Amino acid sequence: MTQPAHLHADRLFPASEPARSIARELYPAVKDLPIVSPHGHTDPSWFAQNGRFSNPTALFLTPDHYVLRMLRSRGLDYDDLGIPRKDGKPVETDGRAAWRLFAQHYHLFAGTPSKTWIDHSLHWAFGIDEELSPATADRIYDAIDAALATPRLLPRAILDSADVEVIATTEFALDPLTHHQAMEGEGLIGRVRTTYRPDDVTDPSRPAIIENLEKFAELTGEDVARWDGLINAHRKRREYFRRFGAVATDHGVPTANTADLPRVEKQALLDKVLSGRHDASDAELFRAQMLTEMALLSVEDGMVMQIHAGSRRNTDPALFAERGTDLGADIPRTTDYVGGLDALLSRCGNEPNLRLILFGLDETTYARELAPMAGYWSSLMIGPPWWFHDSPQGIRRYFDQVVETAGFYNLAGFNDDTRALLSIPARHDVWRREVCHFLGNWVAEHRLTRSSAEDIARHLSYQAAKDAYKIA
Amino acid sequence: MTQPAHLHADRLFPASEPARSIARELYPAVKDLPIVSPHGHTDPSWFAQNGRFSNPTALFLTPDHYVLRMLRSRGLDYDDLGIPRKDGKPVETDGRAAWRLFAQHYHLFAGTPSKTWIDHSLHWAFGIDEELSPATADRIYDAIDAALATPRLLPRAILDSADVEVIATTEFALDPLTHHQAMEGEGLIGRVRTTYRPDDVTDPSRPAIIENLEKFAELTGEDVARWDGLINAHRKRREYFRRFGAVATDHGVPTANTADLPRVEKQALLDKVLSGRHDASDAELFRAQMLTEMALLSVEDGMVMQIHAGSRRNTDPALFAERGTDLGADIPRTTDYVGGLDALLSRCGNEPNLRLILFGLDETTYARELAPMAGYWSSLMIGPPWWFHDSPQGIRRYFDQVVETAGFYNLAGFNDDTRALLSIPARHDVWRREVCHFLGNWVAEHRLTRSSAEDIARHLSYQAAKDAYKIA
Amino acid sequence: MTQPAHLHADRLFPASEPARSIARELYPAVKDLPIVSPHGHTDPSWFAQNGRFSNPTALFLTPDHYVLRMLRSRGLDYDDLGIPRKDGKPVETDGRAAWRLFAQHYHLFAGTPSKTWIDHSLHWAFGIDEELSPATADRIYDAIDAALATPRLLPRAILDSADVEVIATTEFALDPLTHHQAMEGEGLIGRVRTTYRPDDVTDPSRPAIIENLEKFAELTGEDVARWDGLINAHRKRREYFRRFGAVATDHGVPTANTADLPRVEKQALLDKVLSGRHDASDAELFRAQMLTEMALLSVEDGMVMQIHAGSRRNTDPALFAERGTDLGADIPRTTDYVGGLDALLSRCGNEPNLRLILFGLDETTYARELAPMAGYWSSLMIGPPWWFHDSPQGIRRYFDQVVETAGFYNLAGFNDDTRALLSIPARHDVWRREVCHFLGNWVAEHRLTRSSAEDIARHLSYQAAKDAYKIA
Repeated sequence: MTQPAHLHADRLFPASEPARSIARELYPAVKDLPIVSPHGHTDPSWFAQNGRFSNPTALFLTPDHYVLRMLRSRGLDYDDLGIPRKDGKPVETDGRAAWRLFAQHYHLFAGTPSKTWIDHSLHWAFGIDEELSPATADRIYDAIDAALATPRLLPRAILDSADVEVIATTEFALDPLTHHQAMEGEGLIGRVRTTYRPDDVTDPSRPAIIENLEKFAELTGEDVARWDGLINAHRKRREYFRRFGAVATDHGVPTANTADLPRVEKQALLDKVLSGRHDASDAELFRAQMLTEMALLSVEDGMVMQIHAGSRRNTDPALFAERGTDLGADIPRTTDYVGGLDALLSRCGNEPNLRLILFGLDETTYARELAPMAGYWSSLMIGPPWWFHDSPQGIRRYFDQVVETAGFYNLAGFNDDTRALLSIPARHDVWRREVCHFLGNWVAEHRLTRSSAEDIARHLSYQAAKDAYKIA
Repeated sequence: MTQPAHLHADRLFPASEPARSIARELYPAVKDLPIVSPHGHTDPSWFAQNGRFSNPTALFLTPDHYVLRMLRSRGLDYDDLGIPRKDGKPVETDGRAAWRLFAQHYHLFAGTPSKTWIDHSLHWAFGIDEELSPATADRIYDAIDAALATPRLLPRAILDSADVEVIATTEFALDPLTHHQAMEGEGLIGRVRTTYRPDDVTDPSRPAIIENLEKFAELTGEDVARWDGLINAHRKRREYFRRFGAVATDHGVPTANTADLPRVEKQALLDKVLSGRHDASDAELFRAQMLTEMALLSVEDGMVMQIHAGSRRNTDPALFAERGTDLGADIPRTTDYVGGLDALLSRCGNEPNLRLILFGLDETTYARELAPMAGYWSSLMIGPPWWFHDSPQGIRRYFDQVVETAGFYNLAGFNDDTRALLSIPARHDVWRREVCHFLGNWVAEHRLTRSSAEDIARHLSYQAAKDAYKIA
Repeated sequence: MTQPAHLHADRLFPASEPARSIARELYPAVKDLPIVSPHGHTDPSWFAQNGRFSNPTALFLTPDHYVLRMLRSRGLDYDDLGIPRKDGKPVETDGRAAWRLFAQHYHLFAGTPSKTWIDHSLHWAFGIDEELSPATADRIYDAIDAALATPRLLPRAILDSADVEVIATTEFALDPLTHHQAMEGEGLIGRVRTTYRPDDVTDPSRPAIIENLEKFAELTGEDVARWDGLINAHRKRREYFRRFGAVATDHGVPTANTADLPRVEKQALLDKVLSGRHDASDAELFRAQMLTEMALLSVEDGMVMQIHAGSRRNTDPALFAERGTDLGADIPRTTDYVGGLDALLSRCGNEPNLRLILFGLDETTYARELAPMAGYWSSLMIGPPWWFHDSPQGIRRYFDQVVETAGFYNLAGFNDDTRALLSIPARHDVWRREVCHFLGNWVAEHRLTRSSAEDIARHLSYQAAKDAYKIA
């Protein structure tokens, strides 16, 4: 039997010759390189406890905001998909019922990266070649369910079979890193690493900010009511995270704004936040100042700083009130990197020890801001296409617009940035195929030699991520 | 004799194999589907009266702002093209003289959709294969003129020969719908439908706004000086429009801003408008509030709401003073859909009965805002590329940027949005060829199967418009 | 021996047939057309004095901000590249040492237009086919150095061998045009032309603005403290520049903002500037008003006005303090042409004698603003892709987004805009190849006939620039 289209060996390569053949020839050089996943959101308990995944729905449907949002957009109810409500009212608990609904609407995903990732995962992890549909829903559910009971689908076995050399999780500043402690005992740290994401104590728009800062003080023994104490608390916490393999920090911010205030204004701002009297612009200024502080700490300790800017979170207040965050209602906004990062870069942009990787959701900045900035500042690199743009067309728009000005060596390679463990090989495979697609076209246009294209393909598929994140 | 390039059977299909052949094979499945035209600006008197079109210039040149603006941009004078002046000074009245000027400059249209539409119309309606040029100007003029005297070029015959299943016109709230009344008597309503476009009574920047609101009160018997009365007037008028087939409302607004004010502020705003004391920001706020009111009425009555946002109208004050509106001086602007629609969507974005189709002129929003929003909200769909972007490259940029996040089923199919009756088949044909172009490439890259591509092609060419506009 | 990839005869043509063959067939029609270079920054002393270029590093490395910024972005120190410091501290003075550093990092330029230009120049001017690398660094350095001593590498010989028909330099308003005076005596004016760039006396953000305006008064004998005197000074100076072949003015502005103030406000603004009491918004308003004044003078004297808008200059204050301007730290910003140019266009946009060529760094404006504006106003044309966007992908994005709305005849052809003499043939060749690339694809899609494509290719490669700049 021939393979279905979605698993065709040439998928995503250029449609026409000679670029197709060139891409096909480049691909073997990158296909089996180990996976380096320096930024993502997998659950560290999986690796610490190595327990089985509960069921197909909990694996593929309920935690995947890309999938949920598409189903909702065509009228499905989150209750029927088993998404818990804050008010405790019952939602669908039968995984199979939700799975059938999903299968019934699987045609909605035609052309989306979600379908690419799921199809790839079903094949790669479960040997399933047929497409999900109402007719195959139960058969596929049963096949997955049975396989999940076997040792080769345990989290650590998946890391092995996917050849994951390094994977970073992301934890908030207050996280005790319990699971990483357990992994430390088992010698897993280094392969699994945490990442310091202090949004819980740097973003005053969080309702629990004061409580969080109090916990931060307890955890570090610092007086966080004084600006220097607050910074010192971060300094200590970053050190603690590094013990568990952290090479990077991560900052999720609505804008890329940074500030570099005089000490007295910083203290006044902190006072306001701690007294709960801050408004939205105070919150923005506090976040802005904290980004600069984090950059200065990176200059000290060498941790790579990541800024994920430009998402407007929770744009549906009804959903937020009903079920909380991360369920599909976050939408990108325009981002000004040049103006936003001015304060930070003016302060420490030329420091040799600073490495700042920029991610964005406003593609208009690729050629206008990000590539020109990364092509100048030694501290800046451009992260791969993020979120909605982590897709074949998104990757094409990215390469189209960044390479000529930033070159290949100011790019940070690939991040899968996922909470879906099984999608990791799928996502890296899409990236690698798109790298071959892009380079295949350029070789066919005589813009690169085949041998330099192969070097670049390998770099972008593997080494770039290690270099960018200072992973030895 | 071989056909000229502009009528080649493969035009607009991908240049290279194998995608070209795939597109060529998909095209027959969509080529002859009936035309559904749910949004446009044809003149209802044409269908009501079924009279002959006066002459070639009045058909192709004088009413087409795309054509006029290009000629003006290269130095031609609107006087010489026969565009009337407000001051009554004489302009060219000899249709043939203006036509010759047009023909003499027809090379300026190389590469523009205007040329594609005109070439297609000349061939489709008049059997003319040769290109318009100074040498052919008179011959083509005479051929068109002669044909216009024949029954097969009467408006209703054109609807038949173009296989138009449904066509919507657009009328302002104060329009008596005289022509639709006439059509009602002849059983034409359903095939021809009106659309409720209340800009004349919702946009305080119109000089006649107070007078218009007074007429609105008379027409509906409502006290439009009270907010509830004003809304009730709309409620009645929408019902009246539905009697003449209206399934949709349409809103032409400079921005996508919406508001959801407390009742007292709404009344105060209305008081200001009615007293003529409003400024530009009051006008913006009034429009913003009215969009939310229209959405709430759509929740009630199920009419599909269309927002056409982002045109800066009448950017040449000299032209406006001299000859009025819609003559080529409207230019797009940036649009913020996420921030703009926040009030409306927070109020009723999850209502199952709301259907809101978004059109825009700021392509940067495709991947950043429109696709993520339509891929979340059940009420939102994305309209096809509009105005300057209704072109082969414009359609390619659209598919490139919306499909991966919104999928195919959150798209509203095609709108020709034209006042040029003969361009309707041309415009739908470009869309269908571009659908095949896009899908041909994706099948060639093994991203879709050929059979799902054919389903999607049919959907986007026909059914999507019917579904989006709730046309049974 | 076969040619290396970077010199392949088909480079930059479409990768696939039949478009590749069509492009290959179009190219001979444009390849050897004379070069018209109506805007650029070559040094007029080269042509006036016709002296030899000092050494390879001074020719290719030190003056090229594209090259310098990329090397800096990967951690190289400007000291080691021989970039002078304001504080006089020593920097590398050995050209060969800096050249070796450059060669060692030449792989960073893979995929950049810099590499394309340099590779082309090395081949075209020096017959060097091998790639720059650590292994070839000295051999290439020696070959260049030897050739620079020969007559065929003198500046005027380069103009001849590159078949440069016209080249414009750019001088500030206070420039005495000494070198152009010398050229006048030798009959070179006409082939070499100056351009009037009055930023030194129109931009109050320049530290020396008051001093400059005083010099401007001396030079012209006008009382520049009165608005009319200031304008008259420009009027005289423009006349002086025209004596040295100037057909155009050029305006480098952070935004496209224009103003049309009443006389009393203009005088008040000038008073403020002359007294040194202006702030940033006064400076912006002064620049804005001056753009309108320049347009009015163009209406008088017929000089073509160029606006290069959207660069945020000197974004790294440390670099600026250390070494000055034009060293890679200028980064694009968003630009609003519709709102910005409103005052100017409302004042004189319909004047038949006005020709305004717009250049930008915000590609989002191509389809949204620039093409719609140029497709309406008879005074407006769109300049070619500028700066970071003067690259193969940049040119593709440009054609993709401007042609359908502006047509081909509202485009101003090509500008190389360079200070690197040897890159001129390279840059024009890239443009011409990309023109053939674009047209080859459109002919292959049956959107243009081959013969009209050839006409358009010739126009865009040669005549468009002469027409746009009114060069007889």
